[in-house]
Amino acid sequence: MDRDDLTALILRAKRRAGLSWDQIAARIGKSAVWTHSAATGMNAFPKDSAEAFVALLGLPESAIPLLVESPLKVWTQAVPTDPCIYRFYEVVGVYGPTLKALINEEFGNGIMSEIDFSMHVEREANPRGDRVKVTMSGKYLEYANW
Amino acid sequence: MDRDDLTALILRAKRRAGLSWDQIAARIGKSAVWTHSAATGMNAFPKDSAEAFVALLGLPESAIPLLVESPLKVWTQAVPTDPCIYRFYEVVGVYGPTLKALINEEFGNGIMSEIDFSMHVEREANPRGDRVKVTMSGKYLEYANW
Amino acid sequence: MDRDDLTALILRAKRRAGLSWDQIAARIGKSAVWTHSAATGMNAFPKDSAEAFVALLGLPESAIPLLVESPLKVWTQAVPTDPCIYRFYEVVGVYGPTLKALINEEFGNGIMSEIDFSMHVEREANPRGDRVKVTMSGKYLEYANW
Amino acid sequence: MDRDDLTALILRAKRRAGLSWDQIAARIGKSAVWTHSAATGMNAFPKDSAEAFVALLGLPESAIPLLVESPLKVWTQAVPTDPCIYRFYEVVGVYGPTLKALINEEFGNGIMSEIDFSMHVEREANPRGDRVKVTMSGKYLEYANW
Amino acid sequence: MDRDDLTALILRAKRRAGLSWDQIAARIGKSAVWTHSAATGMNAFPKDSAEAFVALLGLPESAIPLLVESPLKVWTQAVPTDPCIYRFYEVVGVYGPTLKALINEEFGNGIMSEIDFSMHVEREANPRGDRVKVTMSGKYLEYANW
Amino acid sequence: MDRDDLTALILRAKRRAGLSWDQIAARIGKSAVWTHSAATGMNAFPKDSAEAFVALLGLPESAIPLLVESPLKVWTQAVPTDPCIYRFYEVVGVYGPTLKALINEEFGNGIMSEIDFSMHVEREANPRGDRVKVTMSGKYLEYANW
Amino acid sequence: MDRDDLTALILRAKRRAGLSWDQIAARIGKSAVWTHSAATGMNAFPKDSAEAFVALLGLPESAIPLLVESPLKVWTQAVPTDPCIYRFYEVVGVYGPTLKALINEEFGNGIMSEIDFSMHVEREANPRGDRVKVTMSGKYLEYANW
Amino acid sequence: MDRDDLTALILRAKRRAGLSWDQIAARIGKSAVWTHSAATGMNAFPKDSAEAFVALLGLPESAIPLLVESPLKVWTQAVPTDPCIYRFYEVVGVYGPTLKALINEEFGNGIMSEIDFSMHVEREANPRGDRVKVTMSGKYLEYANW
Amino acid sequence: MDRDDLTALILRAKRRAGLSWDQIAARIGKSAVWTHSAATGMNAFPKDSAEAFVALLGLPESAIPLLVESPLKVWTQAVPTDPCIYRFYEVVGVYGPTLKALINEEFGNGIMSEIDFSMHVEREANPRGDRVKVTMSGKYLEYANW
Amino acid sequence: MDRDDLTALILRAKRRAGLSWDQIAARIGKSAVWTHSAATGMNAFPKDSAEAFVALLGLPESAIPLLVESPLKVWTQAVPTDPCIYRFYEVVGVYGPTLKALINEEFGNGIMSEIDFSMHVEREANPRGDRVKVTMSGKYLEYANW
Repeated sequence: MDRDDLTALILRAKRRAGLSWDQIAARIGKSAVWTHSAATGMNAFPKDSAEAFVALLGLPESAIPLLVESPLKVWTQAVPTDPCIYRFYEVVGVYGPTLKALINEEFGNGIMSEIDFSMHVEREANPRGDRVKVTMSGKYLEYANW
Repeated sequence: MDRDDLTALILRAKRRAGLSWDQIAARIGKSAVWTHSAATGMNAFPKDSAEAFVALLGLPESAIPLLVESPLKVWTQAVPTDPCIYRFYEVVGVYGPTLKALINEEFGNGIMSEIDFSMHVEREANPRGDRVKVTMSGKYLEYANW
Repeated sequence: MDRDDLTALILRAKRRAGLSWDQIAARIGKSAVWTHSAATGMNAFPKDSAEAFVALLGLPESAIPLLVESPLKVWTQAVPTDPCIYRFYEVVGVYGPTLKALINEEFGNGIMSEIDFSMHVEREANPRGDRVKVTMSGKYLEYANW
Repeated sequence: MDRDDLTALILRAKRRAGLSWDQIAARIGKSAVWTHSAATGMNAFPKDSAEAFVALLGLPESAIPLLVESPLKVWTQAVPTDPCIYRFYEVVGVYGPTLKALINEEFGNGIMSEIDFSMHVEREANPRGDRVKVTMSGKYLEYANW
Repeated sequence: MDRDDLTALILRAKRRAGLSWDQIAARIGKSAVWTHSAATGMNAFPKDSAEAFVALLGLPESAIPLLVESPLKVWTQAVPTDPCIYRFYEVVGVYGPTLKALINEEFGNGIMSEIDFSMHVEREANPRGDRVKVTMSGKYLEYANW
Repeated sequence: MDRDDLTALILRAKRRAGLSWDQIAARIGKSAVWTHSAATGMNAFPKDSAEAFVALLGLPESAIPLLVESPLKVWTQAVPTDPCIYRFYEVVGVYGPTLKALINEEFGNGIMSEIDFSMHVEREANPRGDRVKVTMSGKYLEYANW
Repeated sequence: MDRDDLTALILRAKRRAGLSWDQIAARIGKSAVWTHSAATGMNAFPKDSAEAFVALLGLPESAIPLLVESPLKVWTQAVPTDPCIYRFYEVVGVYGPTLKALINEEFGNGIMSEIDFSMHVEREANPRGDRVKVTMSGKYLEYANW
Repeated sequence: MDRDDLTALILRAKRRAGLSWDQIAARIGKSAVWTHSAATGMNAFPKDSAEAFVALLGLPESAIPLLVESPLKVWTQAVPTDPCIYRFYEVVGVYGPTLKALINEEFGNGIMSEIDFSMHVEREANPRGDRVKVTMSGKYLEYANW
Repeated sequence: MDRDDLTALILRAKRRAGLSWDQIAARIGKSAVWTHSAATGMNAFPKDSAEAFVALLGLPESAIPLLVESPLKVWTQAVPTDPCIYRFYEVVGVYGPTLKALINEEFGNGIMSEIDFSMHVEREANPRGDRVKVTMSGKYLEYANW
Repeated sequence: MDRDDLTALILRAKRRAGLSWDQIAARIGKSAVWTHSAATGMNAFPKDSAEAFVALLGLPESAIPLLVESPLKVWTQAVPTDPCIYRFYEVVGVYGPTLKALINEEFGNGIMSEIDFSMHVEREANPRGDRVKVTMSGKYLEYANW
């Protein structure tokens, strides 16, 4: 069983269990964003979360060492084609220089960490049509000079 | 004067005026993210905002028609190299499929709009080091079937 | 059975049934463009359409959950090589700036939605040789400013 | 004066004349799509249309030979970044194989011509928000076998 | 059996039959260029040619529907590496603008069709070394203006 | 004066002289294809042809050394976008493997030279629409083995 | 004066001053690696270092605000061609997975920071030929889970 | 058994043996960096090291000839996506010209060898958070002139 | 058995036979460079060499038709990553314009053939470290003009 | 004067002096390959060679510091289009794996240096047409293990 097999196994088990990512996340005490990304091989589980996750979905014990390993994060489309994902790529293309300018003006010579980082997706009710709200929080990292 | 000349002119005028993007945005009644992107040619100004902006920074009247035009949004680096911008690209690479999965699960078969969209950058105080908080809000758009 | 297996299964069933896409579409109350794209994994079926489609082509019940899932829309050729598809890519290359200019002039600062969108392909009789007529209709989306 | 200089000259003259592309097109007896594309160097003017166009916008006589030349059609972004143009690229990516399948089924083994081709952009009134309607018509071309 | 399996089957059958492409083409009343390209999935057979081809090479009846389908024409090397094919790519790179200039000068504002098109390869005897002669004939297509 | 300046100078002189490429070629005893490509920097003139060419178009003497130099042949679009040129690229993509197969079958293990090579473009009268006829002739080169 | 002009000015001033990067770095109390990168627009100077640098090289006062700005870090060659730089790219290609594996094994689920980062280049005397010694030190950053 | 099978076998054997790369390296008298890279097919083992490695991990004898072969070093991502590896790519992008300038200034007209090269990864204790220390040492190679 | 299977079979047979490429080449009366390239599918064997090669390595008779076929020469890395191969790519990048200039100066307006071509690799003894000597010889081909 | 200006100056001076690269090289005691590459900014001159070169061609003294600097070696075409240069790229594509295999078999686990490297181009008289002979000699470099 390699990591891709495990991902397929997880998706089947989730469907069988009839649980949403929100529900799974709540049961293991994590957020939905993190849980989905870790379940699909884009983050590593802490030992105890892996055990809770395996128990919840009835996965084999042998899944645990794979879940706790630091995965090699690979994406093969430099520009993603799926429209739902592309729109976020477009945000980076259009607003990337703006994000940089405002971070530099507010914080100084540094960046937002993508490692000490968290993200949430929520529904924002709106009479003219509900909205997707995405919140990112990353530690500000100041460039060293030496 | 083309759009690039105007952007350079704006950046010089801003430096001379000693105003931050937050301050400029407040004066014209807009957010800092939108103001920076419109000022640098990635969004179009409504007529009245353009007039307020031109007055505030002492720009020539001839800047107004350029500011209200729908700009051609071009970026030449499919993968941005600047570390501050790259980290956001990395977010899309790592979490893109997760964003899609959670939007589909919560909202249905659709996407977050990048057009009916707003974004904010804030400082999040934190004893272990302040954090950059980025909030996006885009209208949920459901795929048609016909 | 994954989505690619299902597509192959559908194409075989269609050939066996001797039905055209127009006929299949008519039977499930949809258009031919939408039906083909949903059948080949580029759109998601509403539950009832999936059931009608499965019944019509004699597909297994297990196809239904796959048909209603929001598919990951992937194309691997940034520039399509097939001549029939390339010509449409060429239209975008040659007329893209024109479409933008006319949409901006007529509607304002916005775009045509590709999500709240429909398309039709028809035969246009012509004494000098029949023509392919393609009609697209997408909701006009105005850029927010905030 | 090369072709790019001429395009810039035309855009300035158009702004000064206060005419829309629809109005210019009507005056020279052509459509707006064709007129914009020919004016910006993506199509060649017939001699008489060039003369009418030059007279209408008060351009120098020397513009005529440039307008009637077959332009070299170049675009440098294989994947266009401007959101308004990208959505049309996305249509080709998502629906390209569908267009091919339906053309083959309806017409036979051939393609839609992008040369013997016309296109129109219109407003489609709609209570839930007006829509952009794009109509393409291209001669069906059958593959030879020999 | 998919199209690639069929191509492999055809190449084995041809080797067993000891026939050249010229001989096969003659037997089914077509040219060698067209026959090879159709046999290897780059063109579609008319029904009767498919039947003659299948009979000649002793292929299974089930090959016929695959041979008459309009194939998706895909090549994965934008720049071909094989030296024999690359030289033709080089011809297009070096002489492309020349071909355009001479077609425009002789015919007007249009192109050579690659659909209503035929090609032949012949030996040209020459005392200083025989030559490869390639002849292309494509219908001249005039750009519409509308 | 560099090579690009010279090309621009030549095109202006040609327009002023009111000569077609066919006429220029005839006057210097060469073909139109070769003459255009050499005039635009894709081939080198022999000394005497350069002198005849310079005399015919009234170019400065200093053009001669530039015309006889072996030019660096550069094209920047791996896939040409101009529709007239793209169709020839498409021919190579669709028929490249066929050209290779037929050359190998007829001549042996070798290729067509693109250096000891000539090409002609002609009009082919046809009641259903005239055709562009392109003829290439390249020396057959056999791979060495050693 | 933009950032590129300033870099050219700095290199000329350095040549005139006859100082090495080591010497300049020592005078402003920084390392040679950092000083070179900041001087050539790949890092931002703290205010006091900028003043010392400007004084040392006799640059105009107007250079200071440019030196303290957070530069947009752009490189246009995804794969660098210069052999001296390419060898470091090669190190990343060959040893990248090894660096990841050893960091994960020693530190846990995280990465080396390229922001809280320093680097030094030294000569390592060796009887068989001196060696280039490069030392990098980056803060270990642990992936969050949330 | 090909090289990829062997790598998978080695990783399983390592997990079973419960040894770290540091421990394995110590047992065969090599460094951890080199041992990992050679074990995963990015370097070749000397005969005796291969034998010690095979004995230590209980691999089949048939692994030895594969371990001592000079591997074809292939990486398919010109820009690596994994964040841990990308940060090193970023170092090369940001500091590549700096490394070149300092090597040239200190050593002369040459480069650091990536062949006569060694590298080490260590933990650097630090009260503000431990650091990853990477040390590279490559022979200085002077360009020949001849 | 396809060409890749045959290559694997040849490499196993060579290992079993304990012969170097030099020895194999000598036995079939060819050079090592040519023999290796033909054996690994980058050149075609003449009939008699194929028979000698098959006999020498104890390959099945069915290998002969595959060995004499003109192979499709494909490489998928436009820029090779293996350091040993990359260095030759680097030679072309650094010295390509030099090779062109010297060939043009010495021979005229033409190129070195890569078809009527041979190459040898030899050891060059040298007290400061032995050297790899590579000798290429290709027929000079003069550009035609016509 | 930057490096590109200097190259243009050198080429003009060479033309004026009526000297070949062979003659220039002989006068400064170097080879033609090295002299051309150094003169065009792909290698650095030793001080004395720069002085001799400047004197020979009557260049300004200010050229000397530019000639002795280690140039940044940049080529922008990953795959060169000029046919004369492409053929060498093709050699690397076709014979790269062969060069690696033979170097490994003859020398061991290492590569040919492109730094401690020399190359010569010569005419090889041949009754069937003269040949271009290219000789490369690079120091064999053995991979370290540590």
